[in-house]
Amino acid sequence: MNMIETNTTARTLGVNFNNEGTASIVLWAPKASSVSLLIAAKQRTIALEKKEYGYWSVETEEVKPGDEYVFVLDEGKEFPDPASLSQPDGVHGSSRAVDLKSFTWTDGDWQNIDLESYLIYEVHTGTFTGEGTFAAMESKLDYLVDLGITAIEIMPVAQFSGNRNWGYDGVLPFCVQNSYGGAEALQHLVDKCHQKGLAVILDVVFNHIGPEGNNLDNFGYYFTDKYHTPWGNAINFDDAWCDGVRKFFRENALMWFRDFHIDALRMDAVHAIKDFSPVHILKEIKQEVDQLMRETGRVHYLIVELDLNDIRFINPFDQGGYGMDAQWIDEFHHALRVSSGQSKTGYYSDFDGVASLAKSYEDAYVYDGTFSGHRKKMFGIKSSGNAGRQFVVFSQNHDHVGNRMLGERSSQLVSVSMLKLMAGAVLVSPYLPLLFMGEEYAESNPFQYFVSHTDPELAEAVRKGRKKEFSAFHLEGEAPDPMAGETFDHSKLQWDLPGIEPHRTMLGFYKTLIAIRKKYPALYQLDRENVSVGYDQSKQTILL
Amino acid sequence: MNMIETNTTARTLGVNFNNEGTASIVLWAPKASSVSLLIAAKQRTIALEKKEYGYWSVETEEVKPGDEYVFVLDEGKEFPDPASLSQPDGVHGSSRAVDLKSFTWTDGDWQNIDLESYLIYEVHTGTFTGEGTFAAMESKLDYLVDLGITAIEIMPVAQFSGNRNWGYDGVLPFCVQNSYGGAEALQHLVDKCHQKGLAVILDVVFNHIGPEGNNLDNFGYYFTDKYHTPWGNAINFDDAWCDGVRKFFRENALMWFRDFHIDALRMDAVHAIKDFSPVHILKEIKQEVDQLMRETGRVHYLIVELDLNDIRFINPFDQGGYGMDAQWIDEFHHALRVSSGQSKTGYYSDFDGVASLAKSYEDAYVYDGTFSGHRKKMFGIKSSGNAGRQFVVFSQNHDHVGNRMLGERSSQLVSVSMLKLMAGAVLVSPYLPLLFMGEEYAESNPFQYFVSHTDPELAEAVRKGRKKEFSAFHLEGEAPDPMAGETFDHSKLQWDLPGIEPHRTMLGFYKTLIAIRKKYPALYQLDRENVSVGYDQSKQTILL
Repeated sequence: MNMIETNTTARTLGVNFNNEGTASIVLWAPKASSVSLLIAAKQRTIALEKKEYGYWSVETEEVKPGDEYVFVLDEGKEFPDPASLSQPDGVHGSSRAVDLKSFTWTDGDWQNIDLESYLIYEVHTGTFTGEGTFAAMESKLDYLVDLGITAIEIMPVAQFSGNRNWGYDGVLPFCVQNSYGGAEALQHLVDKCHQKGLAVILDVVFNHIGPEGNNLDNFGYYFTDKYHTPWGNAINFDDAWCDGVRKFFRENALMWFRDFHIDALRMDAVHAIKDFSPVHILKEIKQEVDQLMRETGRVHYLIVELDLNDIRFINPFDQGGYGMDAQWIDEFHHALRVSSGQSKTGYYSDFDGVASLAKSYEDAYVYDGTFSGHRKKMFGIKSSGNAGRQFVVFSQNHDHVGNRMLGERSSQLVSVSMLKLMAGAVLVSPYLPLLFMGEEYAESNPFQYFVSHTDPELAEAVRKGRKKEFSAFHLEGEAPDPMAGETFDHSKLQWDLPGIEPHRTMLGFYKTLIAIRKKYPALYQLDRENVSVGYDQSKQTILL
Repeated sequence: MNMIETNTTARTLGVNFNNEGTASIVLWAPKASSVSLLIAAKQRTIALEKKEYGYWSVETEEVKPGDEYVFVLDEGKEFPDPASLSQPDGVHGSSRAVDLKSFTWTDGDWQNIDLESYLIYEVHTGTFTGEGTFAAMESKLDYLVDLGITAIEIMPVAQFSGNRNWGYDGVLPFCVQNSYGGAEALQHLVDKCHQKGLAVILDVVFNHIGPEGNNLDNFGYYFTDKYHTPWGNAINFDDAWCDGVRKFFRENALMWFRDFHIDALRMDAVHAIKDFSPVHILKEIKQEVDQLMRETGRVHYLIVELDLNDIRFINPFDQGGYGMDAQWIDEFHHALRVSSGQSKTGYYSDFDGVASLAKSYEDAYVYDGTFSGHRKKMFGIKSSGNAGRQFVVFSQNHDHVGNRMLGERSSQLVSVSMLKLMAGAVLVSPYLPLLFMGEEYAESNPFQYFVSHTDPELAEAVRKGRKKEFSAFHLEGEAPDPMAGETFDHSKLQWDLPGIEPHRTMLGFYKTLIAIRKKYPALYQLDRENVSVGYDQSKQTILL
């Protein structure tokens, strides 16, 4: 195996331990002229040897699990490990060596559930519980089982700056956020979920790296100016030196499945992954996950957030597709929200109430080759050959709640009857339903945009940017300060609510709906072909 | 039919005449607040009406073939027609209305030849003959028939600044260069070729617009800063407003086939066409050409220059491909040149003489998923399922000759025996052979880089750029001035040479080789599966 190939059976990048306790250290640093690993506490420096394709490596007995280390480039520049598994002091501190194999799993009998049976519950670890940790999340699993959901989807956990973040500012994709409890706590949570019959989806970000603590560019050519994305230069998936980057993310995907027993990945905004290679990086990840599944006998799914209405992503390889199992469809959400009274501004302007919603029930994509006034172009393609289980739908999620200036959930915007209608709209769809944490009992707290950057300039820039974004809405109040601790605290779920009215009734309603969906084949068999949809624009009604 | 759709039966953009002589005028100008057409000589101004998707149009009796006109945007800005068919005074002058249907064709019996039988001869109109016109080219057709070639490939003819240019600086894609003779002269040439049994390939540039006389940005969103290309911002094939741009190029492709009876397009550098739409623009062009072929019963091919070793471009639709009929493979050229003594610098550094050449005979792509040191990444994919007729090979072409500082053809660089070996290497290949004009008689003139921009600043920038590009080669002499008329004159073929030695012998050799290729099924049946290749690196031999 050369250095660019991936080993499905074990992680190779970073610091890894074999069964005899020897550490294998591998770093991709084509920009470096020398590389060593420094354990400050032991005053030990271990030189790495240069290998092919910009890799450096060494085998050593001198690094043990728990050791804190940095990489030293060119005999002076110290950085945490790009493939760090633990950052006890945050993104700017040292990395800590972790032996992922030391966790004792008890989920040997677990089998991933059929994708068709996924009933997804999206959680943000930091605000799901008062403590904001994986351990605290475990205490809510019985509640979720009782609710009837079958899979939790955890918003990104890669190490980000500070302790408060949605997770999309992660800068160390292999490292589990220390304030959430780190790698072992995530393993423990997944093990517990499996014991309770819950699948676990992890949200991962392969399209950009966060703004604070991003040292990748010092090591190698992780970015390219060939393409622009909303976050600046794109991650380099097809320019010179891309192989080191492609391997980095392939190994990352494999690690979650193999070492954390994650059942499915939700890959963020894959439309911002620009890759004109003969084999798209998503297809390459799928090929390797297929290989892993053959080796382990376990089943894993790849789900993508996709803003393109393009079946190439979810079609099988032999049709030229990338082989993704499923994708999110925001258009169902937009159509549903406009049907429920949302004003047609911004990205909602393309949607025409129940007509668009009926279209989405029937064709998944509302725009399937038709002209979008908002995008100012013909958009999308027909998805008639794709199964219902390939589409994830929702009436709210972290984005569409949090993108509002005040982060109001639907419960703050529409009536109780409308909330029930929206729940029903999602739960009778021939697609995979996703609930956003707390919607099942009409949580009254908002879910606002929050960060905790430690770089004062960046913090100020984010603050200003957010204010500017919503300057047109100044009559509706002021945008909350994303850096303020109270913005985060105010976004937490209030666990006393499910027990009191009117929240208790709403919770009961969701439970009943979910139970009905699970009971009737017409609902749980996601047979798109046999769904017929009628609607009446004047009466604002829709009939499935 | 809405304005964004293409009409395969007739051109819609620009000024077009119906059978009653009425002019239909259509302009895509989403940036304009008003549009009119001005015929200065008649002192007539004709207002266009605003239509959907940024189009403007009018039907009028007031414009006749031969009228010279400009479009006036926002009541003051005058520009030639982006879809102009004629620019009698060059890129900065007025457009002239042309009725493409007025040409009387005599090629009713012509049937395009099988792609497998294409034996291509690349010509640059300006330097192929002393006159540098289509009319003059006609006088050489008997010579080409006698040589045995079956298809001429004409380097780009779209109107460029001045009278001397390779053709890749064209700015009006529908307009045939006036100094070559314009649209009717091209129609006449194609008609004549068909009478003589020659197919005609036209080189078209859909990946960028030249630097002088490019007014497109005043009309609409032809460019996007989402992607970078070697020529700056990419042409907008997938960003907001892309539909007007996509239609512009689709109509252009259809026009050459329908109104000029062109048999095949050679689309320049399609790797620089950046398009993440669900239906790639090349596939969309293919779909419409398929439609045209059904309507007319004629056969047309789409050939692409492609620097990606990616079969997605040449695979059929049902495999997720774009359906292109064939592609150029520069790698065969590079391998052959290194085998013939070319030093391994720049893009040649990746090639290992006969080993690479043998690989290309066997697998078309030399790099098919292997690491390219020059590109610094894994490159390409296997093409084992693709037919031999899908690949065009050559021992020289305009690029690899003209990219040299002094533009030397192979005849100036290697021995006569090596020239013969190189000719043989191309003509026994299981691919489509392409000769560059003059190589068949070992033309001794170079083919140098020449332009004739009329903008002094641009001219100076090109001059300086060329000098800088070759500054490392100053010991080998000075780069010729691309603006100088003598650089152009010096690049013309010398038609006395084929009659005298040693050129006559070389010409005879090419004729014999071509005749042999046409005679033996083992050579003309491009059966890649049954080609077996052996080579001996030490002896520098290769055995097919």
